[in-house]
Amino acid sequence: MVFEVHDGIEHRIDLALGNAPADLLLKNARLVNVLSGDIHPADIAVADGMIVGFGDYQAKKVVDCQGRYVCPGLIDGHIHIESTLLTPWEFARAAAPRGTCAVVWDPHEIGNVLGRAGIETLLELTRDCPLDFYVMIPSCVPATNMETSGAVLNAEDVAYLAGRYPERVLGLAELMNYPGVLAKDPAIMAKIAACQCKIIDGHAPLLSGKQLNAYIAAGPSSDHECTDPREAVEKLRAGMHLLMREGSDERNLTDLVGVVNEHNAANISLVCDDREPIDLTTNGHMDHNVRMAIGLGLDPMRAIQMASINTARHYGLRGRGAVAPGYRADLLVLDDLQGFKVWKAFLKGRDVAETTFGPSGQVPQENTVHLSCSGGKLRAEDFAIPQVSHEVRCIGAIPGQIISKALKVTPKVVDGFAVADPSRDIAKVAVVERHGRNGNIGLAFVNGLSLARGAVAGTVAHDAHNLIVAGMDDADMALAGNVLAECGGGYVVVAGGKVLAKLELHFAGLMSLRPFEEVVAAQKALHAAYESIAVDPAAGARPFMALSFMSLAVIPELKLTDQGLVDVTLFEKVGLWL
Amino acid sequence: MVFEVHDGIEHRIDLALGNAPADLLLKNARLVNVLSGDIHPADIAVADGMIVGFGDYQAKKVVDCQGRYVCPGLIDGHIHIESTLLTPWEFARAAAPRGTCAVVWDPHEIGNVLGRAGIETLLELTRDCPLDFYVMIPSCVPATNMETSGAVLNAEDVAYLAGRYPERVLGLAELMNYPGVLAKDPAIMAKIAACQCKIIDGHAPLLSGKQLNAYIAAGPSSDHECTDPREAVEKLRAGMHLLMREGSDERNLTDLVGVVNEHNAANISLVCDDREPIDLTTNGHMDHNVRMAIGLGLDPMRAIQMASINTARHYGLRGRGAVAPGYRADLLVLDDLQGFKVWKAFLKGRDVAETTFGPSGQVPQENTVHLSCSGGKLRAEDFAIPQVSHEVRCIGAIPGQIISKALKVTPKVVDGFAVADPSRDIAKVAVVERHGRNGNIGLAFVNGLSLARGAVAGTVAHDAHNLIVAGMDDADMALAGNVLAECGGGYVVVAGGKVLAKLELHFAGLMSLRPFEEVVAAQKALHAAYESIAVDPAAGARPFMALSFMSLAVIPELKLTDQGLVDVTLFEKVGLWL
Repeated sequence: MVFEVHDGIEHRIDLALGNAPADLLLKNARLVNVLSGDIHPADIAVADGMIVGFGDYQAKKVVDCQGRYVCPGLIDGHIHIESTLLTPWEFARAAAPRGTCAVVWDPHEIGNVLGRAGIETLLELTRDCPLDFYVMIPSCVPATNMETSGAVLNAEDVAYLAGRYPERVLGLAELMNYPGVLAKDPAIMAKIAACQCKIIDGHAPLLSGKQLNAYIAAGPSSDHECTDPREAVEKLRAGMHLLMREGSDERNLTDLVGVVNEHNAANISLVCDDREPIDLTTNGHMDHNVRMAIGLGLDPMRAIQMASINTARHYGLRGRGAVAPGYRADLLVLDDLQGFKVWKAFLKGRDVAETTFGPSGQVPQENTVHLSCSGGKLRAEDFAIPQVSHEVRCIGAIPGQIISKALKVTPKVVDGFAVADPSRDIAKVAVVERHGRNGNIGLAFVNGLSLARGAVAGTVAHDAHNLIVAGMDDADMALAGNVLAECGGGYVVVAGGKVLAKLELHFAGLMSLRPFEEVVAAQKALHAAYESIAVDPAAGARPFMALSFMSLAVIPELKLTDQGLVDVTLFEKVGLWL
Repeated sequence: MVFEVHDGIEHRIDLALGNAPADLLLKNARLVNVLSGDIHPADIAVADGMIVGFGDYQAKKVVDCQGRYVCPGLIDGHIHIESTLLTPWEFARAAAPRGTCAVVWDPHEIGNVLGRAGIETLLELTRDCPLDFYVMIPSCVPATNMETSGAVLNAEDVAYLAGRYPERVLGLAELMNYPGVLAKDPAIMAKIAACQCKIIDGHAPLLSGKQLNAYIAAGPSSDHECTDPREAVEKLRAGMHLLMREGSDERNLTDLVGVVNEHNAANISLVCDDREPIDLTTNGHMDHNVRMAIGLGLDPMRAIQMASINTARHYGLRGRGAVAPGYRADLLVLDDLQGFKVWKAFLKGRDVAETTFGPSGQVPQENTVHLSCSGGKLRAEDFAIPQVSHEVRCIGAIPGQIISKALKVTPKVVDGFAVADPSRDIAKVAVVERHGRNGNIGLAFVNGLSLARGAVAGTVAHDAHNLIVAGMDDADMALAGNVLAECGGGYVVVAGGKVLAKLELHFAGLMSLRPFEEVVAAQKALHAAYESIAVDPAAGARPFMALSFMSLAVIPELKLTDQGLVDVTLFEKVGLWL
């Protein structure tokens, strides 16, 4: 038997001994060493994308840090890249200069639209990206059987992806269906079995006591849904790794930061879960969460550990999350530690400013918006609601929240049809099945969007990502839907038969293929267009978020899918008319 | 494809929900929760050897802890079980009631005597032991080419054992030959390659700077040889997991404990490396180290973490090292936290007091002491040293230390032969090859054993474990050696042609097959016998330790192997006569 020396160990020994020049030397750094827990002066040598060691090394390139702090690149332990509306490579281009070196991605939205093939496509397209995309396989696609998704992910898909990408697929993503776990649902048990020995992320808001014990018995080892410190402490005690979330939409850090202590910090990571494009480019990604944690009183050492080594260790990312010999040279030079301002970022030892992030291959161009309604086009009459009685269930949108209220209202009726009523802020809303499966259209009313006229539509509509349209005018609603069907999805604002603003999300109806700067500009234009047809001139981003979550039938209280209204508290479909 | 639900997850869910009774409930505990870093009241349910969860569970057996502290069982991250002179199962019977639930064992001594087959035998014999024996494969057998060992372990052996015992063989043990690593010695490179992806334990006393970087580049991820805080900090900064040692022979905890801080503690473990039988039964095992760490000022939470979860995580022992749902039910009920006094210990949920530890099969009975000298018996004349000049090199034993001094003395000469001289505390010492390979006998003099007459011998003689004999009388030396050869090895004290005390170590000449209480009694008898023939009536244990390390040719300054004297500083063999 001959044992091949692996990974060029001999060359690495030579480099470390100084027998061969390094590629890069970061001189005069003050290293925030997350392993030794101290900050010490260091000259840091890098070669072949890895840290060679600390010391007086010869190098082809020298960067004088002039006493600046150096820390490891940041890792997001739980994110849906889809929330950025960007392709992964554009996300990387936006996030890397701010310090992100790796993400643990749950491609739940792509999974719902394109299934296993879509996830595999994106794994391939991000294969060589200098920012690492690790993937957790979505565990709950579709999320419920009360909506029509574009795909189903079953145990075979989990096993296939885990086997095909053993290094990058880390396990099973947020196991949202905890009632199914507790009921020993065979499909869920099979997915857990298919994922044997890999990591299972939990998602169990407010689960407690024996039910929490049972959930953990099934395998989930983390939770990112805590909103209350007591809940967080109970989950830590029960052995879960706490993914402390601060997203664009779901903000928990302020409430939870007090849970961190010197004996449990290793079991806590900062994560963002979602990041909207404007938020990403204005406030940042993980750098924002680290900055905020420091601002809330955490020692910078601890905040950085919670965004680097803790996360790397929980997910078994060897050689990641620290600056030490043999670790990957993902590191940041900071202008300011307390304010966590990145001066330079390096990925695999290369300055991010000199790095490209393009896809590893041709990006598929097909339009994934397939309407099955008559003629493949929506008409105003598709949104007509004939009167049946005198009162309807109405979704009550709550500004800045993904939950909704279940309201009851007496609709305005014209010629035997219930119609939108701008005077009471009651719009019509429709969810149109767009995966070419059945042509379903769910219809209802929504209060709280602040719309005066026109319509707004989007193909980002959790979790099945059908086409959702809300408006005060049926013809504008039909136009909005048709515009998105034609361009392959996105967001659009229309009024008076005219398109006021549009953001195309051609990839799966979820991601733009444009540079992130253009996406941000387009999103701002959408907000401005919305404000131009809104009652409240500050409505801005509100309706887009509300619409995106209005079909999420696992979040209370009243939601709409292509199959109609869902009373989430009862977890069953209900009629529009009372 | 059908995915079998693994490990009885469904049954565990039922147990956690309380749908089936637990085996055991520890009521009214105060749990030292090493994951949440707090101490909280808990009723802890156990079933099938695992923690079900915290809560009000029905159980077949209830133990009322009456407010006592509960903590996880202790894990020793680096031990040579051979140092206890006990079989692993007798070690377990002694250590388990004191709180040990698992050890990471480097069977370096067994490897030197019996090679791969011996390690495999012990892996089999400990297969079902309720105290877990994880094994690191000895990386340096033989330790040098200046001694004759019983076996050689090469890369094939490493690959074989790692492949045959994937769960229990964790990697490559202490890589002592760091000069060989830095020189890219092909045999070492091959062993590292054979161990790919497993853990490599370091052993690099005082290695620093670029050499340390190069050593780490080869793979070692821990170090247990630090003696100085600055050394410990450098190794932590370089990413090594610090195994903070407090052994019977090598005591570093007092010097190193100040290195621990709230940001680096997760990267530090307490280990013992060696534990002599009297020390084990008098002071304890890891409980002693935890108690001492607390006494030195560490928070009990931290000290316990350093002897449980930190070690489990470094070695990748999933579901070990904490008390939480899904973890193995290895836990301790303490009478006193600060004093770390164990009231009850549980292994896999069973009270250690009701547990048996016997071997999993028949223990091999062969005598491994094979003398190749003429007739297979030692004679007095085998120890004769004809005069060559007027000055000899003489080993200077240092009480309580494993290093020795290189002395020069003018020996007493009688009838043309250099002889022992009790008046100057100069004894004769011999290392007799005992693996049946070549009949070598290395001869020299030693100062510092405090021997007045007679002889002492042992087959525990690092690292090749040949037969070492020291004495003031050649005939007694021959008798001592022959007694051990006949019984299969051990320790013996003789004087005036009579055996004064003997401890048989029949297994490999390293381990007693007797109960630990008898081994302790026999060791005390040996010490007493030695004192009866010593000048210093308090000589006690001193000579046995000195003898065991007198042939360890990697520890300075002057050592003796079967091939003669070794100047360790020069790392070469030297003559007796100057």
